[in-house]
Amino acid sequence: MPNLVIIGGSDAGIEAALRARELDPITDATVLVADQYPNFSICGIPYHVSGEVPDWRDLAHRRVEDLEAAGMRLLLDHRAELIEVADRRVRYTGPNGHEGAIAYDQLLIATGAVPQPPPIAGLHSLGPGDGVHMLHSMGDTLALTSYLAEHQVTDAVIVGGGYIGLEMAEALVTRGLRLTLLEQLPQLLPRTLDPQLATHVEAELGHNGVRVQTSTAVRSIEQLNSRLQAHGEGGRSWICDLVLVVTGVKPDSDLAAKAGARVGIRDAIAVDQRMRTSIDDVWAAGDCAETYHRLLATNTYLPLGTPAHKQGRVAGENALGGHRMFAGSLGTQVVRVFDLVAAATGIRCDEAVQQGFDPVTVESEVDDHKAYYPGATPIRIRVTGDKRTHRLLGAQLIGRRSAEIAKRVDIYAGAIHHRARVDEICDLDLSYTPPLGSPWDAVQAAARAWTKSVTQVPS
Amino acid sequence: MPNLVIIGGSDAGIEAALRARELDPITDATVLVADQYPNFSICGIPYHVSGEVPDWRDLAHRRVEDLEAAGMRLLLDHRAELIEVADRRVRYTGPNGHEGAIAYDQLLIATGAVPQPPPIAGLHSLGPGDGVHMLHSMGDTLALTSYLAEHQVTDAVIVGGGYIGLEMAEALVTRGLRLTLLEQLPQLLPRTLDPQLATHVEAELGHNGVRVQTSTAVRSIEQLNSRLQAHGEGGRSWICDLVLVVTGVKPDSDLAAKAGARVGIRDAIAVDQRMRTSIDDVWAAGDCAETYHRLLATNTYLPLGTPAHKQGRVAGENALGGHRMFAGSLGTQVVRVFDLVAAATGIRCDEAVQQGFDPVTVESEVDDHKAYYPGATPIRIRVTGDKRTHRLLGAQLIGRRSAEIAKRVDIYAGAIHHRARVDEICDLDLSYTPPLGSPWDAVQAAARAWTKSVTQVPS
Repeated sequence: MPNLVIIGGSDAGIEAALRARELDPITDATVLVADQYPNFSICGIPYHVSGEVPDWRDLAHRRVEDLEAAGMRLLLDHRAELIEVADRRVRYTGPNGHEGAIAYDQLLIATGAVPQPPPIAGLHSLGPGDGVHMLHSMGDTLALTSYLAEHQVTDAVIVGGGYIGLEMAEALVTRGLRLTLLEQLPQLLPRTLDPQLATHVEAELGHNGVRVQTSTAVRSIEQLNSRLQAHGEGGRSWICDLVLVVTGVKPDSDLAAKAGARVGIRDAIAVDQRMRTSIDDVWAAGDCAETYHRLLATNTYLPLGTPAHKQGRVAGENALGGHRMFAGSLGTQVVRVFDLVAAATGIRCDEAVQQGFDPVTVESEVDDHKAYYPGATPIRIRVTGDKRTHRLLGAQLIGRRSAEIAKRVDIYAGAIHHRARVDEICDLDLSYTPPLGSPWDAVQAAARAWTKSVTQVPS
Repeated sequence: MPNLVIIGGSDAGIEAALRARELDPITDATVLVADQYPNFSICGIPYHVSGEVPDWRDLAHRRVEDLEAAGMRLLLDHRAELIEVADRRVRYTGPNGHEGAIAYDQLLIATGAVPQPPPIAGLHSLGPGDGVHMLHSMGDTLALTSYLAEHQVTDAVIVGGGYIGLEMAEALVTRGLRLTLLEQLPQLLPRTLDPQLATHVEAELGHNGVRVQTSTAVRSIEQLNSRLQAHGEGGRSWICDLVLVVTGVKPDSDLAAKAGARVGIRDAIAVDQRMRTSIDDVWAAGDCAETYHRLLATNTYLPLGTPAHKQGRVAGENALGGHRMFAGSLGTQVVRVFDLVAAATGIRCDEAVQQGFDPVTVESEVDDHKAYYPGATPIRIRVTGDKRTHRLLGAQLIGRRSAEIAKRVDIYAGAIHHRARVDEICDLDLSYTPPLGSPWDAVQAAARAWTKSVTQVPS
């Protein structure tokens, strides 16, 4: 039985350990967890900060007892310091600075990602105790909630208009704060949505009292009396009690790189579809590693929870001698902001051009269900397909909470998974009842509009 | 330009005319509509009866003016009486009994289905004026709503526990009636759900005050003073003011059969995937015709609105010389009853056995979204797959309105469309955010449970 050591106790690491123990109940599976919080739902952090999940412990996907009952050994507060490949050993610093080492037959690196702070003067000298927060770990979360509990915080500035920035904006508004959200690019959700849909997200935030300023980079943060002042370009500034910087992450791949593992895109650990690194018997999965993109048929970097789970499971199986392949990511995402849901899968037009496709994007507005039945609400859908092959490349949707956006994007994701043409969406036998859909579902109406726009003879 | 004549102004017929005019804006497309109500949403009838759609005219998918603007000619109140194939002519009876004929180059038969009344004594002598109603057309609907408006109706009996029976039960309860629902088979939705899920539908009806009696066949209906009495087996009887019989339909194929078209399963008009009948230049689509079943790769009879739309479109294109194939039905259905949604796609275990598969069905109960976020609600999912090939054969889901059941069944429908294995569901890159899903979506957790149960080594 191989002795499997896993560095990292988040999605990928825990899934790997669970899978290994499921396949072989006498395998040694040891997880080095850098903090006290194994298997936490990082995506749930905004809902604890908002107060909707009052006890942060509830954010755990599984409790420590359940993980141990599944047969894995958890070494909490064990930070991996060095991988000694020749000796098949991981050196770590344990609780209270105690140093040690653990031997492995198979090693999974699942160290995740770390925040990538933007070049803002003052960001390194100011910290959580000063009201300047980043947000990636449970430690960060508890620092933030403590700060909110212990200080008089009325105004907050969020730097970063990605999905975490939006969810945290809602969370802090829910707590009663006055909020300004700053994004340096000209639109919110720049890595997810086309600007035509992002404007609706901006409007939803505005309706809920968030002051949104796009095309606005923060240059410095400083203390001003007992408050904070953020400065942007052109002399603009914002006075507040709290600054939250959530501008994206980078792979935590230093340990792997120092051990000699090849790193690739954005310094993520290079892996194949079996989650093998360039070092024998060393695997990597999750946000520290590259992700195979199913549509592009090449690796990319997409730090998201759902592929991390899948990759962990693949790595756990293969570390035990399996031959599982990671089927690939499509970058599928959904975010709910107040009553609005925005989702996307596949690639956008600009990405498709870079990849050598000949893409066209067509936007439609279609009701979620028959207009005669009360509560019908429009969904805006942007379908991207290749003009030459008609292959479906991507879809973006936005609409109200009631419009089943999250599972509608999944219909497109399933179709892309199977390399469908855009018009095949119209062939799918989808469900229909007037309160919940239409005989041609919104996803089909949007696909039809795409095909009609790119063909001489309408399809 | 061919002169296209279409018999039938419901889903299939109108879609065909729209498609023909879209492809060729100078084609003659004439639709013989037997009544005054072309292109009505038959599926919406319960929501007019309930009062949620106050004006029955709103149930029209499109208004007559819009259909005419699309270039089709509508002959309302024109009942086709005879197809004279040798002369390429359809004889009809028009308004006020006026008889006539119309010549065609291409003919589409889209006559739909008619109610198939069960053998209940008294059903033929009693009619809408007596409070005994069937419900299939807009005429039936207006007769029912008139009866309800003009009579003191406090108690109603619905005979038939299919989806229309359930939706009408809700509609009549919403109107304040006391309701008894009788189904002769041992469960509700017998053609859609396994009994294990149907019990939850029965409970939902019960919670909303509907008295449900399964395994209960009605043998006769008679008038009793100014009320009605329905009699079942074993001396049971129900006194009421209204009986609604909704026990299924049969294809309206007499016209086609008399013209010499081959009829097949349940006397539906035999068609190929191009919607050709056995007669040259005569096409059929919708509930009057057989349906190609994509999973079974053979024809079956599945009278549902969504394939009728698709088939009409295929027929309209092919009548103009196209080569479109109907991709096939999977029998995908969804029904909302009060706050419960039940959905199914593909085939059930018993059907799979008949078709030579080696099926296993595994039931799971999975939350619609992360339990820590408020409002999580369980979805019961039954996945059916083939033990030998692991091919996904079917899925049934039931849960609350908020659980996005309708679009979750569509994820399975998409997978079956693409001949996926059950475990491929777990490979799909589905969307996730804690308020709307889980890192492994409910549909994936259920697929995993299936695979685990049929493999020695868990997959």
